[in-house]
Amino acid sequence: MTKPALSLEPVLDALDSAVDDSIERLFSLLRIRSISTDPAYKDDCRAAANWLAGDLASIGFDASVRDTDGHPMVVAHHDGPSADAPHVLFYGHYDVQPVDPLDLWHDDPFDPRVKTIGGTDVISARGASDDKGQLMTFVEACRAYKAVHGALPCRVSILFEGEEESGSPSLKPFLKANADELKADVALVCDTSMWNAETPSISGSLRGLVGEEITIHAADRDLHSGYFGGAAANPLHILSAVLAAMHDETGRVTIPHFYDGVEEVPAQQLESWKALGMTDEAFLGEIGLKHPSGERGRSVLELTWARPTAEVNGMIGGYTGEGFKTVIPAKASAKVSFRLVAGQDPQAIRDNFRAFVRARIPGDCSVEFAEHGAGPANILAADSPAVLAAKAALSDEWPMPAAVIGMGGSIPIVGDFKRMLGMDSLLVGFALSDDRIHSPNEKYNLASFTKGQRSWARILDALAST
Amino acid sequence: MTKPALSLEPVLDALDSAVDDSIERLFSLLRIRSISTDPAYKDDCRAAANWLAGDLASIGFDASVRDTDGHPMVVAHHDGPSADAPHVLFYGHYDVQPVDPLDLWHDDPFDPRVKTIGGTDVISARGASDDKGQLMTFVEACRAYKAVHGALPCRVSILFEGEEESGSPSLKPFLKANADELKADVALVCDTSMWNAETPSISGSLRGLVGEEITIHAADRDLHSGYFGGAAANPLHILSAVLAAMHDETGRVTIPHFYDGVEEVPAQQLESWKALGMTDEAFLGEIGLKHPSGERGRSVLELTWARPTAEVNGMIGGYTGEGFKTVIPAKASAKVSFRLVAGQDPQAIRDNFRAFVRARIPGDCSVEFAEHGAGPANILAADSPAVLAAKAALSDEWPMPAAVIGMGGSIPIVGDFKRMLGMDSLLVGFALSDDRIHSPNEKYNLASFTKGQRSWARILDALAST
Repeated sequence: MTKPALSLEPVLDALDSAVDDSIERLFSLLRIRSISTDPAYKDDCRAAANWLAGDLASIGFDASVRDTDGHPMVVAHHDGPSADAPHVLFYGHYDVQPVDPLDLWHDDPFDPRVKTIGGTDVISARGASDDKGQLMTFVEACRAYKAVHGALPCRVSILFEGEEESGSPSLKPFLKANADELKADVALVCDTSMWNAETPSISGSLRGLVGEEITIHAADRDLHSGYFGGAAANPLHILSAVLAAMHDETGRVTIPHFYDGVEEVPAQQLESWKALGMTDEAFLGEIGLKHPSGERGRSVLELTWARPTAEVNGMIGGYTGEGFKTVIPAKASAKVSFRLVAGQDPQAIRDNFRAFVRARIPGDCSVEFAEHGAGPANILAADSPAVLAAKAALSDEWPMPAAVIGMGGSIPIVGDFKRMLGMDSLLVGFALSDDRIHSPNEKYNLASFTKGQRSWARILDALAST
Repeated sequence: MTKPALSLEPVLDALDSAVDDSIERLFSLLRIRSISTDPAYKDDCRAAANWLAGDLASIGFDASVRDTDGHPMVVAHHDGPSADAPHVLFYGHYDVQPVDPLDLWHDDPFDPRVKTIGGTDVISARGASDDKGQLMTFVEACRAYKAVHGALPCRVSILFEGEEESGSPSLKPFLKANADELKADVALVCDTSMWNAETPSISGSLRGLVGEEITIHAADRDLHSGYFGGAAANPLHILSAVLAAMHDETGRVTIPHFYDGVEEVPAQQLESWKALGMTDEAFLGEIGLKHPSGERGRSVLELTWARPTAEVNGMIGGYTGEGFKTVIPAKASAKVSFRLVAGQDPQAIRDNFRAFVRARIPGDCSVEFAEHGAGPANILAADSPAVLAAKAALSDEWPMPAAVIGMGGSIPIVGDFKRMLGMDSLLVGFALSDDRIHSPNEKYNLASFTKGQRSWARILDALAST
């Protein structure tokens, strides 16, 4: 592969010179009331898509607005310096959350402005952070490359959806119908936060999920606990015993073969997480707790980012209303989910769990299972070229080195990209936890916007050499 | 005490000669639509009370209808052969269950008749068994004594209530206000069944009850199981562990001091229960189960009549609707009841349970308790004079010897008599499990009615000598 000769420094300079213009462009997009969940704003959503396609076309992208059963997609493509240059798919969404309660906003949510709050310059508007401000950081980086070099350092495809805030109903069908067009080497997803205002982060792993519902049946009707108590099987006892048996006293999951394939987090990774300075007390204190409850001897970050779990998410049986009823119910049920890490096979987890439960059901009782979804963990190895490139680029831009973190939850788009396009995702975003996304007075720090642009310029430069 | 010289045989003969008249009297009572739960039948309830007071007065009782906030009580007194003769209080209820669905009745529920069903003569009507037919067996026995001897062998008081089928709201206040008048040596309660059509039974013990509700609180809000799973305490796990720990693998309750004061059932009693021929398979087969689930090595009759239990009656927490939600709830709760036998102190059971739970709550979580009633077991020792007298009397009347059985459940009136009047209760009834009480086509076997009358004549005779 020929190393493209698109030097970075003039691109960064160009971005710095054009800050006012980039703010004006973002303002134009922010003024469009693209609330996807409310049919009253259907035309506004299309207007936002048209605006973006027009802006991308003006930079030289082959951009189009694509109809779906819901709000349209924006798809755009731009060549790289060569046909075999690295190919990225950048994802963002142009729709925004509703704005009510409107009386809690200090300014009109669709009349964006730059304000100084507590000494920090912020862009204030609905969507400033989630996700219009974020996606424009990438578009501005591309624009600067084109202005300076007339070219981009990688092949770049872009997908903007308009239904992220309303459950993305059109996304899967669209990915399926356009898989060949959208497939790239790696996806860049810009919809997450930094670790803190000085420390950028790359979410390199997301835990997988298996959902199960179990219903234990005992007697063929609800029983009076006076007449039958002490002799008849109580499904609440059986269920409690099954669920209690899932963990040993050290917090480890006891289901046979549960940890098969699970590897310990490399010491270096653990060290880097430790360096982030998040104590168990701080993490749990925010939710009114003190002690990590999972596997003993591991930090909360390791527990939530890199260890698998078995959690009971719901449980019901017998009489649960006001007062008391001395019933032995005919059945009892629970919803149980497993968060998976690399190396764990969702189907094997499900099978082993079911065998574990069945082994604990008395011969005259029975158990029913219902499946509630399954997906493996999504992992971009911390030492993969894309992660290393992004990490170096971000560390050059920000005061603190970039943190490669895990995410305990699932982000559907990441699973969809992996399953449907066979493509890993690199999650990089410049939002902050105090951006009040989804709430009144949403903001995006001006530094997030400007240094975000520079960050993408650096990341594209770094990825070009991978 | 002077032995009263009221010979039994002529009384039994008188009862046999008056069967047709006694049926007519019962029919008169059955025709009154005394449905206590439906205000439309308020006057009917009073009419039933008036009818009973009139009938008792006609035998020579000092009978009165007493107003309450609800339906009236009937109270009646009759002297015995001497001022220090044994004094019994007979309890029954004149109100009946609603009759809907009416179209499932083969005959008008308030037009009683004698029918032959499968070779057995039965009295068919609402209330034939529960409880008008039952209470009239006692009234007829008294009537025969008066007809033959002009006297009763014991001092007899009678209490008929009219709200038993609607929760007895007036009963406690009435007992409290009239405790001196109603207190007797022993209560005779005629509202239970025979062991089978050949075997009469005396319920000599009822288990007590302690009700508790526990709520375990963990985080100060519901959590996302992706972000916090594996690190944050899950109250459903804690609750399951607490409840599962209540029993060991042999089915024994593990709460410290739970069995303090509990004595083994005497071998002779166990033998007599065994002689009843109730197998575990038959008892459990009726409800779709096979294996006794409680303390290992004990029969279902011992388990339900004479052993204490800890049962979970309800449990709820987290997401329990359709589908799935990956939540770690802030709290989870369960309703737990304990059935108590002789020797167990309800307050000690409650205290020990709470200590048992508290010892299993992590330091950063908390537990709340709510009390749902408490009452000790009610026991009439199998070798008490009243039980022995009734047992001999019933065994003389029926084909099989009387069984002294336990009852696993609670009968509120028995607890009320004990607590408020300091009086034990002897539960003797002639209903059968196929009487369809509370259902369409309620019936009372003619033999239950006629041999029931003779049984009470015998019991009064036997009690007179105690």
